[in-house]
Amino acid sequence: MVSPRNHFLFTPLLASTTTGTLEFRCITEPIRHLDRIAYHQSRCMDIDAAQNEIVLRDSFETSNIYRMPYDYLVYSVGSQANDFGISGVRQNALFLKQVRDAMQIRNKIQELFERASKPTSSRDDRDRLLSVVVVGGGPTSIEYTAELYDWLMEDGAKMFPELIDHVTITLLEASDNILSMFGADLAEYTINRFRKRKIRVLTNSRVVRVEKEFVELQDGYQIPYGAVVWATGLMPNTLTNNLGEWQKSKTGRICVTDHLTLHSPSYDNIFCIGDCAETISGALPPTGQVANQQGKYIARKFNHVTAKPWSEFEQHFTEQNKVSFNFVNRGTMAYIGGWKGVTSLPHHLDQDTKTNAFKRRFTRLQGLRAWLFWRSAYFTMLTSTANRILVPMYWFKAWIFGRDFSRF
Amino acid sequence: MVSPRNHFLFTPLLASTTTGTLEFRCITEPIRHLDRIAYHQSRCMDIDAAQNEIVLRDSFETSNIYRMPYDYLVYSVGSQANDFGISGVRQNALFLKQVRDAMQIRNKIQELFERASKPTSSRDDRDRLLSVVVVGGGPTSIEYTAELYDWLMEDGAKMFPELIDHVTITLLEASDNILSMFGADLAEYTINRFRKRKIRVLTNSRVVRVEKEFVELQDGYQIPYGAVVWATGLMPNTLTNNLGEWQKSKTGRICVTDHLTLHSPSYDNIFCIGDCAETISGALPPTGQVANQQGKYIARKFNHVTAKPWSEFEQHFTEQNKVSFNFVNRGTMAYIGGWKGVTSLPHHLDQDTKTNAFKRRFTRLQGLRAWLFWRSAYFTMLTSTANRILVPMYWFKAWIFGRDFSRF
Repeated sequence: MVSPRNHFLFTPLLASTTTGTLEFRCITEPIRHLDRIAYHQSRCMDIDAAQNEIVLRDSFETSNIYRMPYDYLVYSVGSQANDFGISGVRQNALFLKQVRDAMQIRNKIQELFERASKPTSSRDDRDRLLSVVVVGGGPTSIEYTAELYDWLMEDGAKMFPELIDHVTITLLEASDNILSMFGADLAEYTINRFRKRKIRVLTNSRVVRVEKEFVELQDGYQIPYGAVVWATGLMPNTLTNNLGEWQKSKTGRICVTDHLTLHSPSYDNIFCIGDCAETISGALPPTGQVANQQGKYIARKFNHVTAKPWSEFEQHFTEQNKVSFNFVNRGTMAYIGGWKGVTSLPHHLDQDTKTNAFKRRFTRLQGLRAWLFWRSAYFTMLTSTANRILVPMYWFKAWIFGRDFSRF
Repeated sequence: MVSPRNHFLFTPLLASTTTGTLEFRCITEPIRHLDRIAYHQSRCMDIDAAQNEIVLRDSFETSNIYRMPYDYLVYSVGSQANDFGISGVRQNALFLKQVRDAMQIRNKIQELFERASKPTSSRDDRDRLLSVVVVGGGPTSIEYTAELYDWLMEDGAKMFPELIDHVTITLLEASDNILSMFGADLAEYTINRFRKRKIRVLTNSRVVRVEKEFVELQDGYQIPYGAVVWATGLMPNTLTNNLGEWQKSKTGRICVTDHLTLHSPSYDNIFCIGDCAETISGALPPTGQVANQQGKYIARKFNHVTAKPWSEFEQHFTEQNKVSFNFVNRGTMAYIGGWKGVTSLPHHLDQDTKTNAFKRRFTRLQGLRAWLFWRSAYFTMLTSTANRILVPMYWFKAWIFGRDFSRF
């Protein structure tokens, strides 16, 4: 395994770590804890498919470039936050993809409160500092907004009673609705709930630039801010962009066959999975659920054949390869704050009239039930026993003792 | 309360966080969680005792300098790591005073293993990278060495079986014995134990310079290293040094009366406690135990009188002030690795022959008993209920599941 990041990150719970509901290490799994894996903390710089070799750059001594041969390659590099080329985003906004990002966001919000509490800060300073703008209407930004609001109202209000009225949270979405993959009913439920909690939700609000102290929308409206969290969408990362010979989709993702092997040029021994790939028969959403199923599909292929002697490996592998990848949608879910969630299970969005009322009732959850579903689903998906102990413990701690408010 | 650091740090357990036995946040207590305290995250730049004002610099907008008046001042700024003016220490060594330091040390050791595991690193590279030098023979460096060894042998050996034989840990002490405050018998016990565990203990080894890849001793011997941890002693910090009018001791600490007020110039409303102060009647060791008792002494003074009306405050306060501070030695202890510790309780070092064997037996502990004493003592000293739950939980986690090996 080659990666500049030495841990696996359980991204669905990343938003919870930005506020200290969970600690960073309980949603990561160190790669080094896995058995029988040779791991290199290096960055892949290029892929020489003709030679069956990849080119690596050492993460620590960056002048150390070396090559590594392979028989089979699984290309699974993910993607990066998309700034849509909007000016000032990379310089001024905070992203939410990695543990480091979550740490930065957490420290930033704490910093804003400390700065606003200074006797030298004016009323206007306070209003600006305590204005948080979240850009994007997908599950990541919704969950971040929900967690932020919970944190500030449950813990912030106790610590900074004189500041809490200065807080404004604004959620910006460029299209005409949030949570598009959940359907209009759950989106409406979420918007209503956010508005009751005094979170401003502005749809049809495209950001055109992010200056040091304000965000400007297309209609000229300027929103002063203390922090901007940018979670609008994804774009291919540098390595994927640089693989010039490989066929890409319109969105820049690598085209793969239904067996998840490279489509063109065709190499049977290169698999691409996750956000960076797209099957030519139809694009799947760039979610963890898809990547997870793709990972299992490939693992199954290799596991079925590794029991055989090496001489028969290729033949068995090719046989195994006849089963193509088939995505099974298990639904989507999001936490929306205050012990409430939204869950859209398969069939929820079916237009089929034969889907009866009873079935529909269980394919669309909102409120406490959806939140319980959300917690139990993510809890069962955690990868290690240690984290299965830590995560509920921190949930309990946040509930009873509040969230930690120190930065270092 | 004014401090650039927004949390209280339980320093005695800091060494445990360098290896992930404990997580950073379970030994910190956010200042903001305390009730009825106005906190400023600022750095004190100067004290204008004549005007009863202090000068502060904002920790975030560093050009923001402001003054704050006081009736009473408690000066408790601690001290900083002492490099004894040895060349290269500040540039190349890692210190162990703050949470950030512990994070850096933890990440550094992980980095060394990742670098050494690269196929491009030679046998010599590995030997150098995996050589850790700890400078200082006090409890901090002893505990760090012990934790490091536990970590590497329990977790490192599983993850890097091919590298573990390249690891060398060297402890350097300039004087002729380690753990001087514990007495010769416990020092000898510790040295024997360390040597059994293949930790090199070099006494009478004064470091004269720290270059980028090696440490040089006075006798010319050069030790190549991957990491140097510097924990030799303390020196006054910049603010204390700059308070030119205040009388200082030979070691640069501020001289205080037996009531812990400023000795010269005499200001009854300025108290100095902790590492930065020294009573004129005799120096106390710069330990948490002394600072803790001094803090309680001052708190008692204020608490006894705050129930009275403000007009009578000064009078009561002066009365209260007649009781001078008296340090009660409750002993010293250190963890030395592998479920063993050393504990020196009062009377252990008494030369009095009347102290009978029975009494002596309980004033000097070593091994498992001392370790249990160490754990229970520190456990009871933790300040919050949340941390009293977290700390044993992490001890349990480290014991069963090992320590986390990811860096971010």
